[in-house]
Amino acid sequence: MTWIVNAWYVAAWDYEVDRAPLARTICGVPIMLYRKLDRGVVAMRDACPHRLLPLSMGLKEGDSIRCKYHGLKLAADGTAEEMPIKTDRVNRAICAETYAVHERHRFVWIWIGDKAKADPALIPDLWPCSTRGWSFDGGYYPIKCDYRLVIDNLMDLTHETYVHATTIGQSELMETPIQTEVIGQEVFVRRWIPDIDPPPFWRDALGAEGRVDRWQICQFIAPSAVIIDVGVAPIAAGATIEKHDQGVRGFVIDVMTPESETSSHYFWGMARNFAVDDAGFTARFKAQQGGVFLEDVAILEAQQRSLASNADLKLRAFNIDEGGTRVRRMIERLGAAARVSD
Amino acid sequence: MTWIVNAWYVAAWDYEVDRAPLARTICGVPIMLYRKLDRGVVAMRDACPHRLLPLSMGLKEGDSIRCKYHGLKLAADGTAEEMPIKTDRVNRAICAETYAVHERHRFVWIWIGDKAKADPALIPDLWPCSTRGWSFDGGYYPIKCDYRLVIDNLMDLTHETYVHATTIGQSELMETPIQTEVIGQEVFVRRWIPDIDPPPFWRDALGAEGRVDRWQICQFIAPSAVIIDVGVAPIAAGATIEKHDQGVRGFVIDVMTPESETSSHYFWGMARNFAVDDAGFTARFKAQQGGVFLEDVAILEAQQRSLASNADLKLRAFNIDEGGTRVRRMIERLGAAARVSD
Amino acid sequence: MTWIVNAWYVAAWDYEVDRAPLARTICGVPIMLYRKLDRGVVAMRDACPHRLLPLSMGLKEGDSIRCKYHGLKLAADGTAEEMPIKTDRVNRAICAETYAVHERHRFVWIWIGDKAKADPALIPDLWPCSTRGWSFDGGYYPIKCDYRLVIDNLMDLTHETYVHATTIGQSELMETPIQTEVIGQEVFVRRWIPDIDPPPFWRDALGAEGRVDRWQICQFIAPSAVIIDVGVAPIAAGATIEKHDQGVRGFVIDVMTPESETSSHYFWGMARNFAVDDAGFTARFKAQQGGVFLEDVAILEAQQRSLASNADLKLRAFNIDEGGTRVRRMIERLGAAARVSD
Repeated sequence: MTWIVNAWYVAAWDYEVDRAPLARTICGVPIMLYRKLDRGVVAMRDACPHRLLPLSMGLKEGDSIRCKYHGLKLAADGTAEEMPIKTDRVNRAICAETYAVHERHRFVWIWIGDKAKADPALIPDLWPCSTRGWSFDGGYYPIKCDYRLVIDNLMDLTHETYVHATTIGQSELMETPIQTEVIGQEVFVRRWIPDIDPPPFWRDALGAEGRVDRWQICQFIAPSAVIIDVGVAPIAAGATIEKHDQGVRGFVIDVMTPESETSSHYFWGMARNFAVDDAGFTARFKAQQGGVFLEDVAILEAQQRSLASNADLKLRAFNIDEGGTRVRRMIERLGAAARVSD
Repeated sequence: MTWIVNAWYVAAWDYEVDRAPLARTICGVPIMLYRKLDRGVVAMRDACPHRLLPLSMGLKEGDSIRCKYHGLKLAADGTAEEMPIKTDRVNRAICAETYAVHERHRFVWIWIGDKAKADPALIPDLWPCSTRGWSFDGGYYPIKCDYRLVIDNLMDLTHETYVHATTIGQSELMETPIQTEVIGQEVFVRRWIPDIDPPPFWRDALGAEGRVDRWQICQFIAPSAVIIDVGVAPIAAGATIEKHDQGVRGFVIDVMTPESETSSHYFWGMARNFAVDDAGFTARFKAQQGGVFLEDVAILEAQQRSLASNADLKLRAFNIDEGGTRVRRMIERLGAAARVSD
Repeated sequence: MTWIVNAWYVAAWDYEVDRAPLARTICGVPIMLYRKLDRGVVAMRDACPHRLLPLSMGLKEGDSIRCKYHGLKLAADGTAEEMPIKTDRVNRAICAETYAVHERHRFVWIWIGDKAKADPALIPDLWPCSTRGWSFDGGYYPIKCDYRLVIDNLMDLTHETYVHATTIGQSELMETPIQTEVIGQEVFVRRWIPDIDPPPFWRDALGAEGRVDRWQICQFIAPSAVIIDVGVAPIAAGATIEKHDQGVRGFVIDVMTPESETSSHYFWGMARNFAVDDAGFTARFKAQQGGVFLEDVAILEAQQRSLASNADLKLRAFNIDEGGTRVRRMIERLGAAARVSD
């Protein structure tokens, strides 16, 4: 397994899950997700305990699901409620596995590992996605690569110059030195660019002329999120690399969930503390960001194919990969810990 | 192997095989079928004994087949008749394997196992398909699942309520208790519903008003047929579960042939002893039945995929699966016996 | 490995390689080919030594290639010239493997094995492709079969009667006995047909009436070329099987390069010493030859699939396969020798 087993992963955007079942394989396990009448989310193994037909092909009846094959009816907790022959005595031992789920920061989180350890306090703190005064929206891409390749990509933004040459590439930014730090289960890669003329996007966001301090801080949060703190503040405002709410600020949000060893779910978006009520800005930005991330998808899927066809070669880490390298080391350590304690 | 090796399987409908070769993989073996000038059927390994090009790509010459690659000509018994160079001495040791075939009950049967044991008397007795006073027609579907999943499906008709909800589903029937019995190499699952108002289809077939007795008897015949005896008789006629030719009667005919461990050939149809000369009825029924069985194909192929993606889970048998369970036990026993005697 | 490791293989036609990278897998190794400003050809492992993105997705800068992912810039010899951060010190140990290439006879040849042994003198002598007084052109097909199946095909022209029945099939030719000979790393299959009326194609080529001597000489040249010497000469001219430049002469050129164990690159064409300046003839002949070879592609890919689905059967060699059999024995011997000396 290339992922940490005992951890919360994003199963879906809040808006993807509704009354009708959604089928999605998470960490190698086929899962069905749906909402109950009280809007609570159910995550159940997507295989009928009778003959394994995907339950997501079934029929919702209230909060229960009835298998499309022989009509076995399961309650939201996975236990049998009605046998195929309605008059047969219900065997309470018949049960589809359910998984701990929790809705937070606009995402539905799932815990595939040991359910007893599924403490919601362990959910990665994506506060910009759910804090008053901030706006957050984004999209979803399936991607045919190891989720760690996406993390590598995000923890080293030098790729923007080439992968996104015609969209957001900005090579001048890359010349600013980075500073890498590990804190607990997080890895930071920070760039602080003091006293510059802001690029058009940020000048518009700030709504003011004049020189600014600018930052770009990639933050990995185990098991598999990368949020990138970006923004500018007028130089007179006294922003620092530690504290910089004086200007305009956004977070590029990226959460990756393993589907298999070589495929993933990629949830992405943008949280911002400016123009928060401007729905047009939100829609335009999401469309643009979606286009930029498709450029990454093309590169990452080609990289995955190349890993397979060049099995004798190894990935190599340069200075720029320090963030990604530390992330991989952390994942191994946390994965190992999980295995030891299991 | 999940199938009984020494047994007759349906290779094709009689109408599928003609002078031009038909390629079909049976029990894992690529086979070519064609008819000789006397209409007898030839079943030959679909690989030229020279360079293995499929013989089914070749040219028929009388009852012989000439390979499309170098022109090796083989007689209907598989032996070489002419070398690529016409003047070369024919090497009689060059030979494509041929298989025992027998045409009966509208099907072409093939024996892939030990040819010496291929006794036509062992062909499953599908008498309604070939008895005067009965009419029989049907179709063919390739299906990407283990042939045993199709048998499971047919030996337990409770699935009709859900899989065929909008076509032939009739949940009231399912509440009648079933009786399961093993007799020799056959398994029976019987339902007898006495003294009811007939549904429209059967009332029309009977051509009379009044209450009826109704039956539904699934009969598995090794190695891989399920025929379902269905019909109604006026209550006064004295029909019994053992003997019920007093009214109108039909047999749903289902014969499954393994292609591989996870794919099969599904031959299906309907034999009936009423309206036997009504070609319109035959055509309409075949169209409807084909539609209903496509609903099964969708479910069964989803089930097969789910078996692969949920490899840690096992199929579970409920009461309703008693027939299917006994069939699987019989297949294992007969398969084992075949292996022991080989 | 089914191929000789230490040998020259055709990577591409000369016209296929230009300034933009061409990706092609040769003997199992992903390779990128491009031309330098001096038109010399570079063959480099198609994986960036940093994160393995195919270099063929990259950007050419002069004779160097810059990876599309993080911008690592490699010189034509594969060594790093510039790090992703332009100001970082270049680590000279970073290097993509390059391969010996040589352009000769209109092809780009590559040596995937031990580079120290890559002596251009070992390139197969396809002299008709590069000799004054001769004209040469042809095409390329990817083909999903073991390269040895193509060689078998070409070393035994009896297949023309059946595979090319409607195009170039000429069964009368096949009745002439063949003579097979091994000389060094070459295998010859010769047909000499004395004193016949020339077929229309050759009569037109000769531009004269009267009876001719005709020949057809298949010549395998290790590791993987087959050139077929064909033509006619007036009987009075004194042509012999050893020396026959008295009339009109052509060479069917076929060079196969393994991609994997079950797929190949097929380079084909025609060299001729008549109508050498007739561009219309060249174009028409190439179109016709391309059509004929597509008939072979269909047969050979069907044969490869049949080899997989009939894994219990073996290829069999008849008299007509003597040439192919000797080739296979030679490949094994040379392959073994290569392995011993490695």
